Amino acid sequence: LVALVGERFGLDGAGRQPPPVTALELPRPRLEPPAALAPIAASDPWTRAAHAYGKAYRDVVRALAGRIDHPPDVVVTPRSEAEVRDVLDWCAAAGAAVIPYGGGSSVVGGVEPDVGEAYRGAVTLDLGALDRVVEVDEVSLAARIEAGALGPALESQLRARGLTLRHFPQSFECSTIGGWVATRAGGHFATGPTHIDDLVEALRVVTPAGTVQTRRLPASGAGPSPDRLFLGSEGVLGVITEVWVRVRRRPVWRGGGAATFPTFAAGAAAVRALAQSGLQPANCRLVDPLEAAINGAGDGSAAVLLVGFESADAPVDAAVARAGELVQDLGGTIDRAAWAQQAAVARGGRGEKAAQDSGPAGSAPGTAAAGRAPVRGAPEAGGAPSDAAGAWRRSFLRAPYVRDALVRYGVLCETFETAVTWDRFDALHDAVTAAVREALGATGSGAGFVTCRTTHAYPDGVAPYFTVIAPARRGAEVEQWDEVKAAAATAVLAAGGTITHHHAVGRDHRRWYDQQRPELFAGALRAAKVVLDPQGICNPGVLIDPGG
Amino acid sequence: LVALVGERFGLDGAGRQPPPVTALELPRPRLEPPAALAPIAASDPWTRAAHAYGKAYRDVVRALAGRIDHPPDVVVTPRSEAEVRDVLDWCAAAGAAVIPYGGGSSVVGGVEPDVGEAYRGAVTLDLGALDRVVEVDEVSLAARIEAGALGPALESQLRARGLTLRHFPQSFECSTIGGWVATRAGGHFATGPTHIDDLVEALRVVTPAGTVQTRRLPASGAGPSPDRLFLGSEGVLGVITEVWVRVRRRPVWRGGGAATFPTFAAGAAAVRALAQSGLQPANCRLVDPLEAAINGAGDGSAAVLLVGFESADAPVDAAVARAGELVQDLGGTIDRAAWAQQAAVARGGRGEKAAQDSGPAGSAPGTAAAGRAPVRGAPEAGGAPSDAAGAWRRSFLRAPYVRDALVRYGVLCETFETAVTWDRFDALHDAVTAAVREALGATGSGAGFVTCRTTHAYPDGVAPYFTVIAPARRGAEVEQWDEVKAAAATAVLAAGGTITHHHAVGRDHRRWYDQQRPELFAGALRAAKVVLDPQGICNPGVLIDPGG
Repeated sequence: LVALVGERFGLDGAGRQPPPVTALELPRPRLEPPAALAPIAASDPWTRAAHAYGKAYRDVVRALAGRIDHPPDVVVTPRSEAEVRDVLDWCAAAGAAVIPYGGGSSVVGGVEPDVGEAYRGAVTLDLGALDRVVEVDEVSLAARIEAGALGPALESQLRARGLTLRHFPQSFECSTIGGWVATRAGGHFATGPTHIDDLVEALRVVTPAGTVQTRRLPASGAGPSPDRLFLGSEGVLGVITEVWVRVRRRPVWRGGGAATFPTFAAGAAAVRALAQSGLQPANCRLVDPLEAAINGAGDGSAAVLLVGFESADAPVDAAVARAGELVQDLGGTIDRAAWAQQAAVARGGRGEKAAQDSGPAGSAPGTAAAGRAPVRGAPEAGGAPSDAAGAWRRSFLRAPYVRDALVRYGVLCETFETAVTWDRFDALHDAVTAAVREALGATGSGAGFVTCRTTHAYPDGVAPYFTVIAPARRGAEVEQWDEVKAAAATAVLAAGGTITHHHAVGRDHRRWYDQQRPELFAGALRAAKVVLDPQGICNPGVLIDPGG
Repeated sequence: LVALVGERFGLDGAGRQPPPVTALELPRPRLEPPAALAPIAASDPWTRAAHAYGKAYRDVVRALAGRIDHPPDVVVTPRSEAEVRDVLDWCAAAGAAVIPYGGGSSVVGGVEPDVGEAYRGAVTLDLGALDRVVEVDEVSLAARIEAGALGPALESQLRARGLTLRHFPQSFECSTIGGWVATRAGGHFATGPTHIDDLVEALRVVTPAGTVQTRRLPASGAGPSPDRLFLGSEGVLGVITEVWVRVRRRPVWRGGGAATFPTFAAGAAAVRALAQSGLQPANCRLVDPLEAAINGAGDGSAAVLLVGFESADAPVDAAVARAGELVQDLGGTIDRAAWAQQAAVARGGRGEKAAQDSGPAGSAPGTAAAGRAPVRGAPEAGGAPSDAAGAWRRSFLRAPYVRDALVRYGVLCETFETAVTWDRFDALHDAVTAAVREALGATGSGAGFVTCRTTHAYPDGVAPYFTVIAPARRGAEVEQWDEVKAAAATAVLAAGGTITHHHAVGRDHRRWYDQQRPELFAGALRAAKVVLDPQGICNPGVLIDPGG
């Protein structure tokens, strides 16, 4: 891919390496933790640099250049909720901003300690030591999990009970459940309960004003939902320390397949039909012709639709067959034999079979695969090389790593996403694509291109996900991307989209979020923040301005 | 039923009639609307009395006794959003409390103008004149509906487009979409998107501080959801004037049936299995033996489970068959022939057939019916007399009317509900039932009884719905019920339930809601209220204390 893109963009072959930590020139830490917190605090350059950025393109290029704009002064890693409280108390007393940090996978500046001049320093509160599945309720199918548990860690603890949270964002390997809740993450389910919001049963949040524990309930009509205030709060209201989530039995029945459509718009009509059918496919992703060619799911002549069903309870034949009819009714071409094929694992072998199905590699994108691939083999072995779904699955998993590699070779490579109602989707797609192309041209990267896939589908709309690949403007990578991003974000809002479907607001999306949310709601949120975080120390700059 | 209950309770046969309006002694109105609002304002006794209460037992017995505790001083019925603003402006200037009023079906004191002494009067803002389906987006399957539209009115407007909101609370005939949103109403779907929350795409709210319009989006991760702040806000943050909701095509495929279980707990295990299966039945309601006997769904020897599936897209045979297996695996007895029978309406006839299926009478509880009953005949004709599902359906629809009739004969008849995780369900059921029985005994109504059904089922829990029927303590009906209710609510909270799954908080649930919600969340909500309703005029006494 590097060779292919390099040739198109006329790049030389020299990939950059990040500088050694010893070469970084970090400002002296402005804060010193109290003795009681010393055992969990670090101010060494490596730790500070490692917590300075998320995983956006603008983060990667800055890190590659040895440029650390806003390192935290201190990184603390509490081992208990009591220590979280101690850290907040210290920060409040010291006039320091505190940035909750899960896996550090923010692509919107959510963890960058760019807190302005009003603070005596910035403390990054890394929740990584709070990573246990504390309790499992096998009757209600729910689990209490500490906020700092990374995806693989929590899944491996649940797997021992035959259960799974089955929430697989693309960042799964390096993001935490607390981060998912704080940012309203989207999982791999293309329809149905895709947002973590729907999986949250109760929350525990340590705020500077005290601790909030919501009641474990399957549903409630008692006033506005307390959980929903914290879902998407991105650290500005306090630190989420524990989450009760709904888990499920591991799927043992699967089926689905791939279809091609002459155009992206034709494929989108099929996605809409599937989303409005009530069939609730676990996977339903449409990839445009160019993106399909890049990731190997197609040859570039057609848009590719991946559809998959799964169940822990019963065969999915009927749904698979009906989906195949719908897809063909709307002009899709399928391999009927492959589509009809069903991964029918014997129900008796549920426990044993399920254990093979480990995490997103095998199971999440695996729901896209036709036939028996995902349950038969190891993740990487699933699907033949020519299999569109298999190719897409491998691409999905590798994309973030490929991105980092491309960036080293001077390629601008970034993604953004939105959601929009169906009536506006085609127009949004065209307007955003045109805006990005124009912006690339204006930044001297007219050879670049933009592709689109849909990641999540709802009865009333869809979440398109755009990828931009272009020759980087060396030495001005951040400025170049900021220009392209501004054009894209402005087009997204003008076309009726949201500034983010599942990447969060952070610091980078503020300009557009401020236009999107009702002003009076922002006022209500600020007022709530004053109650929970009276000194405004929690993640300033993100989402709202404290006390503003 | 009156004769049956009357004999058991030793009641005489004389049913009370409500007094004529002329016999009511209402205090003089304390407010006079400005001339500009005079055309939409009324202060006559009938209008004031008709807006003084909701539909709780304690409301009905007071009205029957000619006792109107807190009539509004003025009732205004705005014909436009501009007039809603004018009313709020007037109330703010006059120091009057304003109570948003939809269908007046609150059973928790949500519309009773019991606002305390801090106001110069109380104005009830009746949204009944704002009752149009303003816009339908047939591509996205969404509709913009004015808040005051009653269930039947909005369904009849949607039906003309072959669409339905399919949200059928038991109050459907006399509740509004604005009220559903304000109270987080629960519809008839027993699993899946039962709460109106999941059907809301965007909201428009007129607050004393200005108007809030959220963006139409299928989903978003941009900060905490603005919609969710207003969902369940019960009028304390302003007046909901319009709602964009997700609608759907009318179902044409149905199937299901009834099963019996030796005990309620055994039936509950089957409800749990169905809720955790992923099958998402549209109906899945378990009725205990005594309640089944009362409403004719059974003979009192067994608990009765009603299961139904529906689809606008495809036959539901596979789901019906699998549900039948699950039910039998867990000890349920079904009539296999009836269960397997499928209401397979030809897909070609969708539009015409759907038109016959009108509202909750035919369609909502109708999903419970075995075989072809719900799509074949008129609502009342559906199902043979011996058909458990048909009997239950008729009972469901008539229950509120039957309740009113019973009350006239001196019968205490009231319901309450909660939701709880599965691990705590059996214990909650037993504790609450025992608490109610003990309280009835203590109030001299030991002959009374309490029954239970489940109305909504989730993978992680269930919503049980209790009915209390007992001889009323004549002349002290309100006090008696308040004692029983206090015992029940205290037991519900102690057992891990919520004070309400879909009846809202209002004024009557405040004591327990205040224990349930995290104190810091209440503080955040109060702070939000100060921003949106700076003078605290909106529905004081409900949910939170203004400025408290």
